[in-house]
Amino acid sequence: MKKINTSPISGMQEFLPDTQATFDKLKAKIGEVYHRHGFLNIETPTIDRLDILLAKAGGDTEKQIYKVVKTAESSDDADQGLRFDHTVPLARYVVEHENDLTFPFKVSQIGRNFRGERAQKGRFREFYQCDVDVIGRESLSSLYDADVISTLLDAYDQFELDTPVLARISNRKILTGFLRDLQVIEKSGEIYNIIDHSEKVAPEETKGALVELGLADGTVAKILKFIDLHGNREEVVGGLNEFAVKDEMFTDGVSELEQVMKLLEADGLDKKIEADMKIVRGLDYYTGTVFEFCLPEYKQIGSVGGGGRYDNLAGYFTEQKLPGVGGSIGLSRLFYILSENNLVKDQTDKPVDYAIIPISDEQIDFALKVAKRLRDEKNSVTVVYMDKKLGDKLNYAAKIAKNGIVIGEDEVASGEYKVKTFN
Amino acid sequence: MKKINTSPISGMQEFLPDTQATFDKLKAKIGEVYHRHGFLNIETPTIDRLDILLAKAGGDTEKQIYKVVKTAESSDDADQGLRFDHTVPLARYVVEHENDLTFPFKVSQIGRNFRGERAQKGRFREFYQCDVDVIGRESLSSLYDADVISTLLDAYDQFELDTPVLARISNRKILTGFLRDLQVIEKSGEIYNIIDHSEKVAPEETKGALVELGLADGTVAKILKFIDLHGNREEVVGGLNEFAVKDEMFTDGVSELEQVMKLLEADGLDKKIEADMKIVRGLDYYTGTVFEFCLPEYKQIGSVGGGGRYDNLAGYFTEQKLPGVGGSIGLSRLFYILSENNLVKDQTDKPVDYAIIPISDEQIDFALKVAKRLRDEKNSVTVVYMDKKLGDKLNYAAKIAKNGIVIGEDEVASGEYKVKTFN
Repeated sequence: MKKINTSPISGMQEFLPDTQATFDKLKAKIGEVYHRHGFLNIETPTIDRLDILLAKAGGDTEKQIYKVVKTAESSDDADQGLRFDHTVPLARYVVEHENDLTFPFKVSQIGRNFRGERAQKGRFREFYQCDVDVIGRESLSSLYDADVISTLLDAYDQFELDTPVLARISNRKILTGFLRDLQVIEKSGEIYNIIDHSEKVAPEETKGALVELGLADGTVAKILKFIDLHGNREEVVGGLNEFAVKDEMFTDGVSELEQVMKLLEADGLDKKIEADMKIVRGLDYYTGTVFEFCLPEYKQIGSVGGGGRYDNLAGYFTEQKLPGVGGSIGLSRLFYILSENNLVKDQTDKPVDYAIIPISDEQIDFALKVAKRLRDEKNSVTVVYMDKKLGDKLNYAAKIAKNGIVIGEDEVASGEYKVKTFN
Repeated sequence: MKKINTSPISGMQEFLPDTQATFDKLKAKIGEVYHRHGFLNIETPTIDRLDILLAKAGGDTEKQIYKVVKTAESSDDADQGLRFDHTVPLARYVVEHENDLTFPFKVSQIGRNFRGERAQKGRFREFYQCDVDVIGRESLSSLYDADVISTLLDAYDQFELDTPVLARISNRKILTGFLRDLQVIEKSGEIYNIIDHSEKVAPEETKGALVELGLADGTVAKILKFIDLHGNREEVVGGLNEFAVKDEMFTDGVSELEQVMKLLEADGLDKKIEADMKIVRGLDYYTGTVFEFCLPEYKQIGSVGGGGRYDNLAGYFTEQKLPGVGGSIGLSRLFYILSENNLVKDQTDKPVDYAIIPISDEQIDFALKVAKRLRDEKNSVTVVYMDKKLGDKLNYAAKIAKNGIVIGEDEVASGEYKVKTFN
């Protein structure tokens, strides 16, 4: 019967109402957690100037930006595109509104972003991201790094998964200082990439890649030992000290890591965090703390969120120093992964609480009164208007609602009605 | 200090956090009302195929569609654009998922749409719309027209305006039947336009435009008398009967109007509705009930929402008959208008409930415990980490939060703390 292709474009997520209700509920809960942790919500336009979007994009991201063709009536503006993350528009926002904001500025953003990448399972071209960031002016305490991680862990708790979520934490300064001490800092870009990929490949492959870079055997061995360090604060800091690195940046990084981990321990999160030297985070704008969230019982899933510290959020837009720390839950991808692995608690309840069925038009007045009363008690109520037999109306009611109320002459006369609960 | 233009593109709405909080609250309340009236929420992709978007666009809308340039990696798909309303993607959605939906399908959509029109005050190129629709299969009772109007009136109630909102209701069949009876149906398009514009111009101008169409004086007089008809059900139906029109469509329209108005009266909304023959609604896909919402005390504002009945939602996409009725609140525009007229209750409360200030790092553990306890009681709580004097921390706390709690050695020792309420 269809005349044209009505499927959504590939790479777009489109849910039936039941699944949408589950998704919406999770999204709302994340928003509530962000609010409870004192983050102020903002929303930036979906469309932004290309010179803003491209300022920091680079590499693959630049190729993935959707450009927007201005219309005849909107041609007065600069070249435009769809935002591909929340960080770049946030940088613009903070610079634009700097004088009206209070710093440290704790800010949350929940919305859709766009990347025109190759369509593949579990990757979406339009996707929800749920971000928190803290932006300072001139300086920002490392404790906010812990604040962001703690907030995100609380958000994951809202998913009520039957499997634990772990925050894996490192600090870019440790790795950079370590490579400086090993005198291989000029190859840091390549080494970062190899470490970043090391979880997806066999250990020999990582070793091979490092050897191929022309590193000495001793250096390769040290790097492999380094990236294998993970565990609680004492274990990892102890392991790091064994390297006896003489580099100020390394020492700074270790002490920041300790500070962040200590605060999270004080926050009762010691079971949910681990220091892990494998964590690099590809994006090169991170300058300190970096972190990723994973489900340790589902290693194959990979990261389900992450973030880190960037010392100069808006360097492209302003000379004012605006250090920040931020983290993000990629909700669309996470929801897909959790659904695929049956980890999301299903929205088994039908979303409508009561379907009210007036037998004939004479009973509509009373049906509306009952509906109003139930709605005042915060119920979701629908009145069924169908020119069909009572049986058909009841079938419809049973499909959409938890309970049905039939209103006939007797009910109107007595003012009383029965509530039938559907299975 | 800024290096480049960081303002949002013209025609985009971007709020500071306080205003955003007010906006978010209204949006959430509208969503709650839609849910309480039994509408299931869905979300369609922002980007859709151009052949879907253009199927029903036509006229100005077509010129206002933002086209999206596919990226190298997303080039496998059809030509694409940004949705300009919720109705077209809904038509696609209903056809695509027809077998998985239960009809009548009561559905809500709250999201951003895009029109690249000339930038002008109070008109936005990216804007929130909050829609409800009821879609039937083969048939759909006119009572759902009243259901939609009642739901939208309830949503406007959530704005707690100090000024009333009025639903002005007509039915396209009445006007069409009337013009048929006058034997001027071949000029209906032009006449619809003149009526649609009649509120924005002086009565003589409307008369002049009708005369210019070449209509007989008697016909012009009748049309002017017709569009002047407004008031409660009895008044308007009485006025319509005086025309003694012999046209089946006219009669059908009047009886549908009566049915819709009667249901709304039974729903206790008689003070909030009026039949009004001036209501046409420009879009030509409406086929029955049409309605608009206005603020009678602010006539210059014009319509703040509206909708109507369309007998064939998805005629371009399927041969299956899918009659529907829908209405929409243009939230971005409405919020702008209400703000300009000081009609929105300000979010004067600061969104953060408590700012907790540990005097030194030794008190952080206890500060985190207090924060957790307050968050468990649903408060929004932030812990202040600033390497500054207590006075500076208190100034910051007072700017962002309703209350401040200073945690020093004494508080940790005693386990007790004072709450300071900021003005």
